[in-house]
Amino acid sequence: MSFNEVFAGYVTQTEAAIDRYLPLASTRPEKLHTAMRYAMQGGGKRLRPVLVLAAKDLFNTKAQDGLAAAVAVECVHTYSLIHDDLPCMDNDDLRRGRATVHRAFDEATALLAGDALLTHAFILLSHHYPAAIALNLVRELSSASGSEKLIGGQVEDLLAEKRKDVSKADLEFIHLNKTAAMIECSLVLGAIIAEASHEETEKIRHAGRHLGLAFQIIDDILDVTSDNATLGKTVGKDAKAGKTTFVSMHGLEKSKLLAEASSEAAIAGFKSLYKGSDFFTDLTKSLSQRIT
Amino acid sequence: MSFNEVFAGYVTQTEAAIDRYLPLASTRPEKLHTAMRYAMQGGGKRLRPVLVLAAKDLFNTKAQDGLAAAVAVECVHTYSLIHDDLPCMDNDDLRRGRATVHRAFDEATALLAGDALLTHAFILLSHHYPAAIALNLVRELSSASGSEKLIGGQVEDLLAEKRKDVSKADLEFIHLNKTAAMIECSLVLGAIIAEASHEETEKIRHAGRHLGLAFQIIDDILDVTSDNATLGKTVGKDAKAGKTTFVSMHGLEKSKLLAEASSEAAIAGFKSLYKGSDFFTDLTKSLSQRIT
Repeated sequence: MSFNEVFAGYVTQTEAAIDRYLPLASTRPEKLHTAMRYAMQGGGKRLRPVLVLAAKDLFNTKAQDGLAAAVAVECVHTYSLIHDDLPCMDNDDLRRGRATVHRAFDEATALLAGDALLTHAFILLSHHYPAAIALNLVRELSSASGSEKLIGGQVEDLLAEKRKDVSKADLEFIHLNKTAAMIECSLVLGAIIAEASHEETEKIRHAGRHLGLAFQIIDDILDVTSDNATLGKTVGKDAKAGKTTFVSMHGLEKSKLLAEASSEAAIAGFKSLYKGSDFFTDLTKSLSQRIT
Repeated sequence: MSFNEVFAGYVTQTEAAIDRYLPLASTRPEKLHTAMRYAMQGGGKRLRPVLVLAAKDLFNTKAQDGLAAAVAVECVHTYSLIHDDLPCMDNDDLRRGRATVHRAFDEATALLAGDALLTHAFILLSHHYPAAIALNLVRELSSASGSEKLIGGQVEDLLAEKRKDVSKADLEFIHLNKTAAMIECSLVLGAIIAEASHEETEKIRHAGRHLGLAFQIIDDILDVTSDNATLGKTVGKDAKAGKTTFVSMHGLEKSKLLAEASSEAAIAGFKSLYKGSDFFTDLTKSLSQRIT
């Protein structure tokens, strides 16, 4: 199978699992569960769940089913987007080509649907794996999404918007935590489910950090070079907000070189794993191709 | 030791543990960690952590330390208050006699500090207990605080504010989930840490449900009969909002009788446990005394 077919297969499995692992829309309170499903079923690349499933398969195709963890990661990613889009944060109307949750429902429902998706991630991890694996999954996901990583990155990102003296180190802190931490975590969850060794897990974690950085630099570039329809979200908002990004700090050409360097470091990391798989090389290249 | 001394002892231990188990205010991002600590160190009854510690001691005074779980429960309770106080929810300025988090900081910080406290609860549970216990703790807390319990109760509560036809069953759904679920959960976490039997755990869960209902009825009564200074939060807001409460539905006298009946059921439940402890009887009575 081609890379695209394998990727699409993981996406199909993820979307079926999302439907299966979320409470039915008819579960009381219906409004809340409808909003949770609206947010989770709005498409998107499904990059993080794919990383969980592919990392699991890299180490052990016969291991425990990775789908509950894949959905858990997507729950956390989606909750962070819902809260990020709220009026007190980015105040965004469009996400994945559709109305954001607070526009489609209301602010209180968006707030609580986000809270519920975050909580649901831990319900899923704690009910679908043997104790030792489940505990490691909860540790990884709670840490990656906590105040020093995902949320820490969001806070520093907000603070940076109001400052003119954002340093390269600040920008790296934001990207490592706001974006790369969850990319890294997704790969690590797959490794944990496959019961990969400590060394293997740390290797894929390290590759994930480079992949995450590449991903964020590419995101900054696309905010300048793409359009709403292609990207499925409002473009040009970073520049409009006077926000410091890789592009505003380094310029477009140097940003492309930086994205390339991070991509290559990620690929080298993936290749160092004992079962060199083309999937992660192809995945990393396919992300880079969006800006070339 | 008297009941008050034992209770105060648990509170002192909890407050020291909150200081120990939260990231330092100097941890990056400082603003976020300062807000998390502001919210957690604002006093309050500390009822839920006390329930964790007392339940653990009821079953086994020598078991694993209950403090990490006690702090985790308080993190979840505090996050739910921070989000509840936001402008898009109750829009409250006062909590535990101080400015609410979004008034003391800003809305985005309050939103993210709430998110971070919820996440931190799972960091704590997954790092301080042996795998089998930790997994059960995560299962209980994620379920009690999820879309069908704590958050479900909050959503139904918001929906009920806009309706005139709230039934007794609706009001019970709200109170069982918005309030009782976390009270129940606190007791169950203590039982899990003490490795109580399944039967004992279910007995204390059941007693906790009655205690939680009693607690909420008393809260509804105090909203009518108390004042801001005594209660440390804005009183009279339920009536002002035209909200259906036990008092608006049943009247003040009948509500007192209902609170009494729930308290008695809780006491009977606690007494049915093999080591009948006066602590829970005294605790339940002390809550009831606030309305007599």
